Amino acid sequence: MPTSTDLPAPLKALVGRADEALARALPGGDLPPVELHGAMRYAVLGGGKRLRPLLVYAAGHALGRDDGILDAPACAVEIIHAYSLVHDDLPAMDDDALRRGRPTCHIVYGEAMAILAGDALQALAFEILATPHGDHDDPLARIAMLRALGAACGAEGMAGGQAFDLSAVGQKLSLVDLERMHAYKTGALIRASVRLGALAAGCTDPDLLSRLDRYGHAVGLAFQVRDDILDVEGESAVIGKTAGKDAAADKPTFPSIIGLPASRERLDTLVRDALDAIEPLGTRGEWLADLARYSAQRAH
Amino acid sequence: MPTSTDLPAPLKALVGRADEALARALPGGDLPPVELHGAMRYAVLGGGKRLRPLLVYAAGHALGRDDGILDAPACAVEIIHAYSLVHDDLPAMDDDALRRGRPTCHIVYGEAMAILAGDALQALAFEILATPHGDHDDPLARIAMLRALGAACGAEGMAGGQAFDLSAVGQKLSLVDLERMHAYKTGALIRASVRLGALAAGCTDPDLLSRLDRYGHAVGLAFQVRDDILDVEGESAVIGKTAGKDAAADKPTFPSIIGLPASRERLDTLVRDALDAIEPLGTRGEWLADLARYSAQRAH
Repeated sequence: MPTSTDLPAPLKALVGRADEALARALPGGDLPPVELHGAMRYAVLGGGKRLRPLLVYAAGHALGRDDGILDAPACAVEIIHAYSLVHDDLPAMDDDALRRGRPTCHIVYGEAMAILAGDALQALAFEILATPHGDHDDPLARIAMLRALGAACGAEGMAGGQAFDLSAVGQKLSLVDLERMHAYKTGALIRASVRLGALAAGCTDPDLLSRLDRYGHAVGLAFQVRDDILDVEGESAVIGKTAGKDAAADKPTFPSIIGLPASRERLDTLVRDALDAIEPLGTRGEWLADLARYSAQRAH
Repeated sequence: MPTSTDLPAPLKALVGRADEALARALPGGDLPPVELHGAMRYAVLGGGKRLRPLLVYAAGHALGRDDGILDAPACAVEIIHAYSLVHDDLPAMDDDALRRGRPTCHIVYGEAMAILAGDALQALAFEILATPHGDHDDPLARIAMLRALGAACGAEGMAGGQAFDLSAVGQKLSLVDLERMHAYKTGALIRASVRLGALAAGCTDPDLLSRLDRYGHAVGLAFQVRDDILDVEGESAVIGKTAGKDAAADKPTFPSIIGLPASRERLDTLVRDALDAIEPLGTRGEWLADLARYSAQRAH
């Protein structure tokens, strides 16, 4: 397969589209409560790879939609992701001072405002997704998206994964336990991103939704394996956060459990799984395939 | 008007109904992640007045519905309320150790788990509300409920009110500023509770929804004025939280700004406003009227 440490041009353009949609979706930084709005914008608009919005756009594209109906789910998943980072970085959680090469939200705005900004962002994501897109909106698709996002964020999804993660510090995990933790912590929202794109595009085929779920599961894990490898190999300046942080915090990682060579092999297997799952989509699945390769090969 | 320091029997029965619906809606405390599920159940099932679910049931009743369709919005608003208390009590926020006569969530489960429990509860509320109620569910009403709840929880609602509250500590607020802060902080969710009950019951009449909004606004403020009066007059053992806490924290309250007698007069005016708003509902609005009186006269 072709190497892809960087995104192809159409996906790069979609990063710009996501950034613009997010800037429009967030409350104005000059409107009261000014500090809260400022903290929300800081948390979301500080760059980032926009992987989750790209998955929404790519899944929608694979199902034949390229239009504005995908902007709301793209914003919703990225806003959820941003809120989760703000809360994960808090002193009581991972206590991280650096994120995407900038001071974390609570360093700039204080702990109380960072907690509130995360809370308000989660609410905003659901509000955006619950806002009909014009007169020809499909209410059943919208409800399915809202339900999928709720499940992905909660105790049986992202928040549950963070709870598993907290209790895993200093523990000796098996590869199975580690993959389960990631399937919750980051996997659930990544799978939801793919599903939301498909649902927004009108997909109701259970077989195809299940294949897209398999794809999302593989891409989510691949992204995480790559993250762990970068934490060992990377430099803070390139990856935009403190390198070696996981090892220092005694967090279980793929390299610490199965070693670097086996982690790289796992990565290859996951990318093959992802590509196999979307094979029936043919060339329409091109962007999804690009994102699978990018998740496994990115340099930061 | 009749005095009502306690709830009439039909509303007391609905407290039991809400408690049962909440216990069913929450994830099992014996299922992993056990600690997170435990913290969520602890936060929601520890008693409480269930004012918001009662408002859902009462508004639904006023519009002619008394059935299971009201359980989901009743659970959703109470779960949002419970999450907001967990986060408000955190050391970085109000730093409170006692709530409803019990140690607060972070005292029992630790700060990290309390943050996560709040986050997971917020997601659960939206997931519950996004789950269709049988085959004859009205998807447009459901989307309107989800949108109203999202708006009520976010930066232009509850979270925004908490941000105003944080910046008000030690400040000299006017009565107008204080009422605006409460209209956001607790008022938005109380108004949403009334609206969700009406929407679930199939109400689409903008005039009636606007009257119910006026009612919710008045009841929300009345509840808060009563809270401030109880903080001055009450004892910790009766009100279930630390008495005199607001004064000690130098928080602006109705008694501190306009004095106790004027606070009591404001309370009477608010109850009259609430009753006036629902006057066209006649006897169907009886439960709503009971709740307006109870909010202003409760002993804890």
